[in-house]
Amino acid sequence: MVKKPAPDATRRSQRSRRAIYEAALALVVEEGYPRTTVEGIAARAGVGKQTIYRWWSSKADVLLEAFLDLGEQAARQAGYEPYSVPDTGDLAADLKAVLRATVDELVDPRFEAPWRALAAEGLVDEQLGREFVAKLLEPQLDLYARRLRAAQAAGAVRPDVDPRIGLELFVSPLAQRWLQRTAPISHAYTDTLVDYALYGLAPR
Amino acid sequence: MVKKPAPDATRRSQRSRRAIYEAALALVVEEGYPRTTVEGIAARAGVGKQTIYRWWSSKADVLLEAFLDLGEQAARQAGYEPYSVPDTGDLAADLKAVLRATVDELVDPRFEAPWRALAAEGLVDEQLGREFVAKLLEPQLDLYARRLRAAQAAGAVRPDVDPRIGLELFVSPLAQRWLQRTAPISHAYTDTLVDYALYGLAPR
Repeated sequence: MVKKPAPDATRRSQRSRRAIYEAALALVVEEGYPRTTVEGIAARAGVGKQTIYRWWSSKADVLLEAFLDLGEQAARQAGYEPYSVPDTGDLAADLKAVLRATVDELVDPRFEAPWRALAAEGLVDEQLGREFVAKLLEPQLDLYARRLRAAQAAGAVRPDVDPRIGLELFVSPLAQRWLQRTAPISHAYTDTLVDYALYGLAPR
Repeated sequence: MVKKPAPDATRRSQRSRRAIYEAALALVVEEGYPRTTVEGIAARAGVGKQTIYRWWSSKADVLLEAFLDLGEQAARQAGYEPYSVPDTGDLAADLKAVLRATVDELVDPRFEAPWRALAAEGLVDEQLGREFVAKLLEPQLDLYARRLRAAQAAGAVRPDVDPRIGLELFVSPLAQRWLQRTAPISHAYTDTLVDYALYGLAPR
């Protein structure tokens, strides 16, 4: 059985964890993923290396949790529950609301730089890329897939649509514009993506 | 007036250019963009550094042309004219044909590794990213935009659709799956993207 820490120790732990997350994200931005080390994270966070190894087994593990924490912060800052796509019964409105919050996060420098550094490393380091996609990106995409399945049950999406592919029509264009800087992103842009994806480019 | 070279000299030049392209692409794959140098390219191609500087002003310029050449090779290998999207009057069929050829190119190791190395560097090096997007990616996207405009004139795409956004519904999902390895790509997948993009996820 795990010993329950005293309240003071828990608060100290939470402060250390936050300091470690921030140090890890800052180093990935400044040095890049390959040159970020557990030693460097510990030094910058002002903790011993052993403190990090008590909680995590590698720098990839530290960073994974740091990014999960960053995503939760961003969601709460945008005023909605992390890991949820709302279901008000209006599919277009629900998708637009979540995509607008995503745009706000992607243009916030605190979030943009570490996400971009991680994404770049994931393109060349296949193992890291697959791990972060599985643990950070797919759980987000699954929320859209679930919302589309609920819409299918309500008759708002065609029953033969594969939700995992359908969601890409509005998620991937935003991802590509942001990742590759092919064009600006805005609320008007993501609203348009949702309308085009739901109603199609061909005349009805 | 530029002196016209003798036929032998032209053939020699073309062989040197091809060797330089291949050396540049191989080095980007093996060493990464930041560690690739004009000196390294020259040594690997078996030419003097001056030969490279006679034709190009920087490693970025060499690589830009090497990637343009690679794209042309891939298109010809797939049996179609580079820099074209066919217009047979059947929009869905035309888009599917070009996207199928793109899938074939993206899974070919000769093309995949250098494109991936360049895309990764473009994410972190903003100036390089913007230059390669402007010179390599946007001209390709513009071909889809033109095809969608022709379809608007023929009544196959709604007149209020912005073609530059519309094309992202089938181009960006393929780009994201390939870049971030979020899921497999295939002809069936890109066919599905075209159908979803043209006819929408909502019932008609």
